[in-house]
Amino acid sequence: VPAGDAVPELVDRARGGDPRAVARLVTLVEDGSPQLPELAALLAGLSADAERVHVVGLTGAPGVGKSTLTSALVGCYRSAGSRVAVVAVDPSSPFSGGALLGDRVRMQQHATDGGVFIRSMAARGRLGGLAEATPQAVRLLASVGFDVVLVETVGVGQSEVDVAAAADSVVVVVAPGMGDGVQAAKAGILEIGDLYVVNKADRDGADMAARELRQMLRLGPAPGPDGWERPVLRTSAAEGTGVGELVAALAEHRDWADRTGALTTRRRRRAADEVVALATARLVAASGAGLDRGSRLEELAEQVRTGATDAYRAAAALLADR
Amino acid sequence: VPAGDAVPELVDRARGGDPRAVARLVTLVEDGSPQLPELAALLAGLSADAERVHVVGLTGAPGVGKSTLTSALVGCYRSAGSRVAVVAVDPSSPFSGGALLGDRVRMQQHATDGGVFIRSMAARGRLGGLAEATPQAVRLLASVGFDVVLVETVGVGQSEVDVAAAADSVVVVVAPGMGDGVQAAKAGILEIGDLYVVNKADRDGADMAARELRQMLRLGPAPGPDGWERPVLRTSAAEGTGVGELVAALAEHRDWADRTGALTTRRRRRAADEVVALATARLVAASGAGLDRGSRLEELAEQVRTGATDAYRAAAALLADR
Repeated sequence: VPAGDAVPELVDRARGGDPRAVARLVTLVEDGSPQLPELAALLAGLSADAERVHVVGLTGAPGVGKSTLTSALVGCYRSAGSRVAVVAVDPSSPFSGGALLGDRVRMQQHATDGGVFIRSMAARGRLGGLAEATPQAVRLLASVGFDVVLVETVGVGQSEVDVAAAADSVVVVVAPGMGDGVQAAKAGILEIGDLYVVNKADRDGADMAARELRQMLRLGPAPGPDGWERPVLRTSAAEGTGVGELVAALAEHRDWADRTGALTTRRRRRAADEVVALATARLVAASGAGLDRGSRLEELAEQVRTGATDAYRAAAALLADR
Repeated sequence: VPAGDAVPELVDRARGGDPRAVARLVTLVEDGSPQLPELAALLAGLSADAERVHVVGLTGAPGVGKSTLTSALVGCYRSAGSRVAVVAVDPSSPFSGGALLGDRVRMQQHATDGGVFIRSMAARGRLGGLAEATPQAVRLLASVGFDVVLVETVGVGQSEVDVAAAADSVVVVVAPGMGDGVQAAKAGILEIGDLYVVNKADRDGADMAARELRQMLRLGPAPGPDGWERPVLRTSAAEGTGVGELVAALAEHRDWADRTGALTTRRRRRAADEVVALATARLVAASGAGLDRGSRLEELAEQVRTGATDAYRAAAALLADR
């Protein structure tokens, strides 16, 4: 951060609506800046302001149209006057360099709107990675005045699912013909959704996909008396149909979660994940910056490899050294 | 483990070729048994035997035919007289209960072959999860006499990719028409493969998929003078074509890795990941069994949620309490 861009000033400017200050702060989070503890302490003081945010996770397999749907959601929230931030989570990739052009192009209609902030996060080279960076980015954006934070994850793997599942409301997006039910079950999506969306609903097979999804969801545990009945909605994000209904269903879920305490539980879980990720990162750093030559961790790993010790004794040694 | 099934006896029986003993030991690993430190210490003593194993990771998007290819590879290795173990890594799913029928049915031709061991691992409810369980299972299988361990991961997310990437040789499987290059780049597969396979090569578009893949790989860093030129192979696992060539290419990669020291580095990395995962699990357990009501972690997470503290200070407190 250049001189004159101290963290407290950046936070003030971001809260005043300066998009460049927001962008700088998110970059600090993405890069794992040494100023993050200072930022975290500042944001803790703003947590009352951050409480009213709605954090929406969107996940689903590649190709289902998540980015198009996210863009349509942004448009819908904007017409209602909400400020919206989008955090698109990409796996770390030295080739792609984080943001992928294709997706961001679809977002370009929002590029000049000051009430919208969009960032692809890769969390390259960070210990703790996205598990640590995403909640920090979400808390930051919530604290500087965004009403809705959309966390869009690319891919269907466990860590992406975990990131999306930490949202206040989790939207699982599928598309007709994108694979049968078994594939859906494999990807673990049946456990994590609060709302399900069959996107590209104008396509053949949308009816069947929605029916199949409802059936599979019925196999799960039934909601209790005060439980949430998970809806299966249909959208055609490209044509803009069904998006208003999704926003309404999201508001309904947010209200339900607030009323029943589910929101508090979810947010506590998010905080716990972040604390554990940071503690792990500290632990690894304390052992000598990961696998750097000559680090304690490298030494222990080599001993495990050769059989001089085992992983349990090595883990105990790593903890004892701290 | 029932009486008479002490860990040292199970290891002896497994080394003698008893498939039930192998299955019991893998279950201990999957369940995160309290006997694992004892097992790990025993296996450390057998590491010289385990060194000659070839650990092959297979990864790729759902639907590319990984299971069929894995099954074909098993057949090919078996005809050469090798003992083969397959660890299929599924995301944790309370619905699917770990193994998915469809995939396993394809493997049934090997079900009665004593030289083949097949297990779907979900690592449900384990702290540290698959990052911890998979290397343990691999070490176990290598120590009890399997020549090849195939680690097949379902999904294309970061944690699955990480699990596969820890193998000695990583095979990335794609299929024609399964999504364009951008989707491949998103999934992060261009960074992790040692060998690339276009499966379902009898389908339209296989030529183009192979060409596109070669082009994308060429955008990456060039291999050095002693580097490994990543091949793009074509298989039709269902028809059995190209599988022998893949086995040959895998042997070539194993030889190259052994000669250049890449194998040692990869295995040290695998051990380090396991050590860190175990240390993290210990840390979380020490804070009072995760998020159980009244645990220290729950208390700290609640303080982070309300802004009474921030995640950095909470992580430091968690470490100090240990």
